[in-house]
Amino acid sequence: MHNYDIYPFAAIVGQEQMKLALILNVINHTLSGVLIRGEKGTAKSTAVRALSEILPEIDVVPSCPFNLPVAGETECCSLCPNVRCRQAAEQGEKVNVNSKVQVVELPVNATEDRVVGTLDIEHALKTGEKRFEPGLLAAAHRGILYADEVNLLDDHIVDILLDSAAMGKNTVEREGVSFTHPARFVLVGTMNPEEGELRPQLLDRFGLCVQIKGIDDPQQRVSVMERRTAFDENPEAFSRSYSDASTDLSGRINQAIERYSQVSIDQEGMLEIAKLCISVGVDGHRADIVTLKTAKTLCAYEGRNQVTKEDINRAAEMALLHRVRRQPFEEIADGPLELG
Amino acid sequence: MHNYDIYPFAAIVGQEQMKLALILNVINHTLSGVLIRGEKGTAKSTAVRALSEILPEIDVVPSCPFNLPVAGETECCSLCPNVRCRQAAEQGEKVNVNSKVQVVELPVNATEDRVVGTLDIEHALKTGEKRFEPGLLAAAHRGILYADEVNLLDDHIVDILLDSAAMGKNTVEREGVSFTHPARFVLVGTMNPEEGELRPQLLDRFGLCVQIKGIDDPQQRVSVMERRTAFDENPEAFSRSYSDASTDLSGRINQAIERYSQVSIDQEGMLEIAKLCISVGVDGHRADIVTLKTAKTLCAYEGRNQVTKEDINRAAEMALLHRVRRQPFEEIADGPLELG
Amino acid sequence: MHNYDIYPFAAIVGQEQMKLALILNVINHTLSGVLIRGEKGTAKSTAVRALSEILPEIDVVPSCPFNLPVAGETECCSLCPNVRCRQAAEQGEKVNVNSKVQVVELPVNATEDRVVGTLDIEHALKTGEKRFEPGLLAAAHRGILYADEVNLLDDHIVDILLDSAAMGKNTVEREGVSFTHPARFVLVGTMNPEEGELRPQLLDRFGLCVQIKGIDDPQQRVSVMERRTAFDENPEAFSRSYSDASTDLSGRINQAIERYSQVSIDQEGMLEIAKLCISVGVDGHRADIVTLKTAKTLCAYEGRNQVTKEDINRAAEMALLHRVRRQPFEEIADGPLELG
Amino acid sequence: MHNYDIYPFAAIVGQEQMKLALILNVINHTLSGVLIRGEKGTAKSTAVRALSEILPEIDVVPSCPFNLPVAGETECCSLCPNVRCRQAAEQGEKVNVNSKVQVVELPVNATEDRVVGTLDIEHALKTGEKRFEPGLLAAAHRGILYADEVNLLDDHIVDILLDSAAMGKNTVEREGVSFTHPARFVLVGTMNPEEGELRPQLLDRFGLCVQIKGIDDPQQRVSVMERRTAFDENPEAFSRSYSDASTDLSGRINQAIERYSQVSIDQEGMLEIAKLCISVGVDGHRADIVTLKTAKTLCAYEGRNQVTKEDINRAAEMALLHRVRRQPFEEIADGPLELG
Amino acid sequence: MHNYDIYPFAAIVGQEQMKLALILNVINHTLSGVLIRGEKGTAKSTAVRALSEILPEIDVVPSCPFNLPVAGETECCSLCPNVRCRQAAEQGEKVNVNSKVQVVELPVNATEDRVVGTLDIEHALKTGEKRFEPGLLAAAHRGILYADEVNLLDDHIVDILLDSAAMGKNTVEREGVSFTHPARFVLVGTMNPEEGELRPQLLDRFGLCVQIKGIDDPQQRVSVMERRTAFDENPEAFSRSYSDASTDLSGRINQAIERYSQVSIDQEGMLEIAKLCISVGVDGHRADIVTLKTAKTLCAYEGRNQVTKEDINRAAEMALLHRVRRQPFEEIADGPLELG
Amino acid sequence: MHNYDIYPFAAIVGQEQMKLALILNVINHTLSGVLIRGEKGTAKSTAVRALSEILPEIDVVPSCPFNLPVAGETECCSLCPNVRCRQAAEQGEKVNVNSKVQVVELPVNATEDRVVGTLDIEHALKTGEKRFEPGLLAAAHRGILYADEVNLLDDHIVDILLDSAAMGKNTVEREGVSFTHPARFVLVGTMNPEEGELRPQLLDRFGLCVQIKGIDDPQQRVSVMERRTAFDENPEAFSRSYSDASTDLSGRINQAIERYSQVSIDQEGMLEIAKLCISVGVDGHRADIVTLKTAKTLCAYEGRNQVTKEDINRAAEMALLHRVRRQPFEEIADGPLELG
Repeated sequence: MHNYDIYPFAAIVGQEQMKLALILNVINHTLSGVLIRGEKGTAKSTAVRALSEILPEIDVVPSCPFNLPVAGETECCSLCPNVRCRQAAEQGEKVNVNSKVQVVELPVNATEDRVVGTLDIEHALKTGEKRFEPGLLAAAHRGILYADEVNLLDDHIVDILLDSAAMGKNTVEREGVSFTHPARFVLVGTMNPEEGELRPQLLDRFGLCVQIKGIDDPQQRVSVMERRTAFDENPEAFSRSYSDASTDLSGRINQAIERYSQVSIDQEGMLEIAKLCISVGVDGHRADIVTLKTAKTLCAYEGRNQVTKEDINRAAEMALLHRVRRQPFEEIADGPLELG
Repeated sequence: MHNYDIYPFAAIVGQEQMKLALILNVINHTLSGVLIRGEKGTAKSTAVRALSEILPEIDVVPSCPFNLPVAGETECCSLCPNVRCRQAAEQGEKVNVNSKVQVVELPVNATEDRVVGTLDIEHALKTGEKRFEPGLLAAAHRGILYADEVNLLDDHIVDILLDSAAMGKNTVEREGVSFTHPARFVLVGTMNPEEGELRPQLLDRFGLCVQIKGIDDPQQRVSVMERRTAFDENPEAFSRSYSDASTDLSGRINQAIERYSQVSIDQEGMLEIAKLCISVGVDGHRADIVTLKTAKTLCAYEGRNQVTKEDINRAAEMALLHRVRRQPFEEIADGPLELG
Repeated sequence: MHNYDIYPFAAIVGQEQMKLALILNVINHTLSGVLIRGEKGTAKSTAVRALSEILPEIDVVPSCPFNLPVAGETECCSLCPNVRCRQAAEQGEKVNVNSKVQVVELPVNATEDRVVGTLDIEHALKTGEKRFEPGLLAAAHRGILYADEVNLLDDHIVDILLDSAAMGKNTVEREGVSFTHPARFVLVGTMNPEEGELRPQLLDRFGLCVQIKGIDDPQQRVSVMERRTAFDENPEAFSRSYSDASTDLSGRINQAIERYSQVSIDQEGMLEIAKLCISVGVDGHRADIVTLKTAKTLCAYEGRNQVTKEDINRAAEMALLHRVRRQPFEEIADGPLELG
Repeated sequence: MHNYDIYPFAAIVGQEQMKLALILNVINHTLSGVLIRGEKGTAKSTAVRALSEILPEIDVVPSCPFNLPVAGETECCSLCPNVRCRQAAEQGEKVNVNSKVQVVELPVNATEDRVVGTLDIEHALKTGEKRFEPGLLAAAHRGILYADEVNLLDDHIVDILLDSAAMGKNTVEREGVSFTHPARFVLVGTMNPEEGELRPQLLDRFGLCVQIKGIDDPQQRVSVMERRTAFDENPEAFSRSYSDASTDLSGRINQAIERYSQVSIDQEGMLEIAKLCISVGVDGHRADIVTLKTAKTLCAYEGRNQVTKEDINRAAEMALLHRVRRQPFEEIADGPLELG
Repeated sequence: MHNYDIYPFAAIVGQEQMKLALILNVINHTLSGVLIRGEKGTAKSTAVRALSEILPEIDVVPSCPFNLPVAGETECCSLCPNVRCRQAAEQGEKVNVNSKVQVVELPVNATEDRVVGTLDIEHALKTGEKRFEPGLLAAAHRGILYADEVNLLDDHIVDILLDSAAMGKNTVEREGVSFTHPARFVLVGTMNPEEGELRPQLLDRFGLCVQIKGIDDPQQRVSVMERRTAFDENPEAFSRSYSDASTDLSGRINQAIERYSQVSIDQEGMLEIAKLCISVGVDGHRADIVTLKTAKTLCAYEGRNQVTKEDINRAAEMALLHRVRRQPFEEIADGPLELG
Repeated sequence: MHNYDIYPFAAIVGQEQMKLALILNVINHTLSGVLIRGEKGTAKSTAVRALSEILPEIDVVPSCPFNLPVAGETECCSLCPNVRCRQAAEQGEKVNVNSKVQVVELPVNATEDRVVGTLDIEHALKTGEKRFEPGLLAAAHRGILYADEVNLLDDHIVDILLDSAAMGKNTVEREGVSFTHPARFVLVGTMNPEEGELRPQLLDRFGLCVQIKGIDDPQQRVSVMERRTAFDENPEAFSRSYSDASTDLSGRINQAIERYSQVSIDQEGMLEIAKLCISVGVDGHRADIVTLKTAKTLCAYEGRNQVTKEDINRAAEMALLHRVRRQPFEEIADGPLELG
């Protein structure tokens, strides 16, 4: 069932690096997310929301608040109100279904409880059985968690998001009772740097970062206007006109997911990455590792099996932009990183 | 039933651009509202409140807290205390009536609960049925939401208003229970820039912006005094003397609403808009889209079907004023934007 | 019954403009109040409190918490604990009595609840009938609300006062239940500018503003000492010695109230006001309107029917002082405004 | 019954102006209190506490929480738990006794409730009878309220103290129920200006102000040490050795209280005061009035009936020190005011 | 029963002035405590905690939360849950025992309730009997109250400590109910001036002040290391090796307590103190009095009966260091005060 | 049972001093912990978490929330819900088991309650028996407490951690009820100095401090990438390939723990340490003592019995880095300390 409220990803004019960074994260969820920085009105949110239509399908138990593929296998199942699925699984029925990966949005004023879920400790103490109300991290498992205006979130919430994204799980603990559920998701943040920066420590933990701005070409701007007003006037007709392009893109993503394990990189490529990171001056080693993985994912997306220098350079642009060491008060460049 | 407490829109002296911006938003509610900036005492609030008498009529179910046109069709109906209308609808009675669009005022100290409404979660947990207390967003559906001194509101509240205005709906979520109702309204904000600015991110999301100041012509000032004191002394007689003018204006608005879908613009006009936006230096593409829609609405209001360069220029003045990129500490010009 | 605790208005030495501004507001409650600015120890509070003895009498239902003239006519009556008056009215008894207009003082730390009153929402939900505890705005209806050190009040409270004074009514709303009662009063604020200014937006909404300071003439200072110590030693004897002067003043006020509707101004006078406001540079049009009304009130107070240039100038001094546009950090002049 | 825990007032070495200011306030409680400013360790607190032994006796109903002279005469009596006194009064017994005026200390962290007392509103609503828990203002009635480190108190509390001291009564109001009891007291504040100033508005409302510092004469310092260690070693013996001096002082105070009404001042003296206040530049007229009263009180204390120029000068020193108009950032002089 | 967890006072290397100041306060609890200022790692806390082993023994009722010497004599006894002692006392049994004076530590985040104790007002109102939960001031009565990092405590808490130390009692008051218990203790504060200063007002109220820093002599530093590691490895053996030294010190302290009343000072000595205080420039007279008492205590500690100039100088070093008047931003010297 | 989620300590590339500091603290828990300072992405957290696999085994009662070696011996046992172990102990069964020392992580937003545990005071008052909910300090007993981003923790929480680490126990006190349990642990803090410093007072209380940064050698960087991606792809296989290295390391640690008591240092070595500390300028004596202990631990780790000059220098590098006295605003050097 197609959702015609959502502008098609394939219809976004320009902004190629942003679209690439999003697609690479969809293919390889270990890239640690992407931070999209850019001036207002540049389709940042539109692009992230549009992802949901081209995301791969996954096997999910219907109505499972944790988006699990199989019923009854994790701790969460034991305390899930949705018992139908477990009973079906016990009787050998296959209960999971194909479902699109979800894009979960994080409200700017989300509380910690809303993000991590709540453990009903009174209930636990009284009855001995835990009761857990899943939060946004549960809803985002195996999907995308989208934090708009991520620079305006409370630092503490950003910490939780990044920790959970890094660990692949969410643990809630209250008065000695604890509960853990899987929470592997791609974290996508958007921000307008006019409104304040993220702490360097948090910046560093986003795998990729792209910087975007409005398009300068008048003809392309007319395309933006045309497509937007066409969509506003008749969303369904407009979306249908892009359905082939959307299907193609989904197909390429699925193929890249399968191909990824066959992609390799030679020692020279590895050294190239290390030298690049040293030369631009980054803190620590996260930049190297993300560049390596991104180059491999990009290679897979383009249907090749051997990482090239070009792959490395394109990956490094997105992996190093926000990690180049800066002078105090020096801002992140507002264009893509120049690599010699 | 006429409300004689309200100064007639047609009796406002001067301030033509402000009046135009308000009317265009009434005609086309996708223009994303208008921000009226100006010094104190310039009839900003008077103009917005006066709108209520010239607004078009809509079909509304009587006493429906969500201003719905038909009973029983949305989720809100299922939990509405006003069940009479649903019963009538089920028995084939036509329950909706003609009603003026409402102007809902937002108090400066409105809380989030007051704005979005409250979900009685204890009730939901105990009885399984949701209970929702509608807020101002519900009351403003299909009408106008007026935020006086919008620059003094909590940023978080402004975010909610703009998000809801952009999405056309309001979702309240509490501890896993959620409820959505339609909330499509024209957001009108007024502010005195002496008292502080809005964040650029928020500015950008108001479709139009007009800057007004007091009238310099002594004779016109006398008219202001004469009309105001005449109104203060006998509101009813004064209002009656403007009733023809008010009826005319309402008529033009209704005709423009019907004509809008027939208005067209040629490629040259589109390119004109794009170049204009590039030349003054705006962030992103929202400016282009709003200018386009405003030019078409203005064209409809003037009873024509083909957008002219003049339409574009007049639209751009209101759509670009607050979007021109500024130096730090450079303020928004206090007159209308000069377009070459 | 005379209250001998209060220093007689007629015994205040000097400070003629302050006394005039207070009297004009008593005559014409649409002048939007007066702000008295001045150094400490200049009888600001004494003058405002003294007003209560010279105020006109009004018809009031005894013990009515809303100071209404007739029983049973407004929404408040339906939820008033003072049912005796309604019963009497129903049986044709005349229940209202002559009573002096009240001067209600606003404590510096008054909460919003104390000012607007409280709506017992639990009661409303349980029993279906509203219960309202009247606040200071109810007590001040038809009288004077005195805010000492108005510049130290919470901005939000000042907003409420000025809104209510402007609208002539007070609406309390809580969780969807609302209640409105009339609240027409003269707002008098006093402040020592040493302790901080009001926001320009709030300044502008006081109709008149006078600036006072201590008297420089030694002999007059001796009069101040003599009268004050005489009053302190025997308040009753001192007050009696001024009772004729007080009665005269009350009489002039009552006559001026009656004469006001007969006062007229010619076109030249109107233009004069407009030009004056343009020449000194004020924001918006409120200054013109207040100057016009003040000049007419002054004319009535002096027993004439045709506004003169002199009336306009004297009115403008009090209406424009706080509205002249200033440079940042430029303060309001500490003497009366010089008009060329 | 003598309290030997308290260092005798008569044994304080030097600091004559401070002692005089305290005594004059005891004689004439309309002098509006005294503010003692001085460096740490200068016996400020010792002097105020010592006052309690030389204060005049007053007639008080035993155990009356409001220190009333007669039982059953004020509103407070009707809600007093101490009913014995009223019954006695009804049966014609004389229930009041001679008692020293009390010195009540205000804790630095005193809350508003503690100061003004609390009205049990729930009780009032349920039973219809008010219940009031008296606060420090009740305890200080007819005595001295001592605020140590008055500059560190919350401004709001200082406001309450000064208002109550000025009005001679305390009104507590909560949710429409109100209660008033008499609260006439001498407010004595001490402060070390090193720790921050009072707002000018509050300064002005202390009748007198004295500035003190440590004694420079070595022999006098030895006296301070000798007396203090003698007192510490045997408080009772030390106090006894000053009991004649204390009795003398009490006697002079009582005589001055009686003589005060016979003291007069001629017109020349009045003009002298007015000119003095104009010449040093004070705000308003409070300074004149306090100087006049202080001069008369001093005259009475010295056993004379006609105020002299010397009386005026000595009074002005204490009444004007804190009222001389200052430049921004100019501090109050740290010695007594020089009058030409 | 010896507590081997505590490093022996006698084993502390160097820091003679700090040790002397502590001992003098133990001998004479009217010296008003000592403030130890010094860089981190200088055995400040070790020294204070070590005091507990050399403190004199006092008679105490076992388990008395107020450390009283006799059962049933104070108000607190009447509401003590420990009734056994009162019954024994009533039957003529001697219930008190010898006990070491206690060192009570004040946690940095101690609340006011924890310090002063809590009065159960609900209980008092319901049953008419007071119930008091003793706080740290009760526990410290007749002992030492140790405030580590006293400069980081809330000013308000420091005020309470110093007030209570000065008055020798603690009064808790809540809603008109009050309770007083004796609270005489030596207040010892330690602080690292790197972390912020105390307000001058608070500084002045510590009787003595010593400034310490690490030892510069390498051989002594080796002793520090040797003793500390010896203690860490076998606390019991190490402590035993110092038990004779500890016993000697306790003996000297007890003898000094007895001798103190026989110590005298001549007029020349008194003048010497006064001149010293004048010459270094201190505020007020507290410095003189503390120097006098300290000199006498030092004299007693050294087994003599007549204060010498040397005693005065050594006392003045500790009594004046923190009281010398300073320029703004001038810091307290980081070595002992130089006296000419 | 091996935990393959954890990257092997032995596989960490470079960062030798950090690894050494961690190992030395594991061997000798009296070294007072280690603070690891360094830029982001330098495997700080990885190293600390990796420790858990090479830590020595200890005897622990199964499920004991306090990690005790023997059942029933401490106060905590008496209020432990885990009674099975006590019953077994009473019947002579050996209930403790071998278990790895734990690494307990402190969440950035941990509250005081979460850290120290909570005492259920209501329960204590009602039933007379205490109930204690253990916190993180209990969980960390005999293990490692890891505070990531220690510089972002609330100062108050850091104080608690350092106090508890120094005292070896945790005392919770509430309204007069108190409870103590052993809490001896190695405190490991990591921080990125870009994000703010610790107060000097807190810095000083970490035994050792190491400063790390990313590796500059490209080939080593490639190793980092290779190992990390190998681990990410197959954690189990990767960990197995390092299991011999891990076992070796564990063995060396266990041997060093046994050998420590035999290690000695001569007087010359002691003097060397004292002179070193004097020459670099440290506050107090903590630096000397930690250097001494660290040198002895290092000696034991290297299998020798006599501390050498080299041991002292290597120990001093880690013990003095954060204790060298600095100018205001001078930062801690970002490389290891240079010792002459």
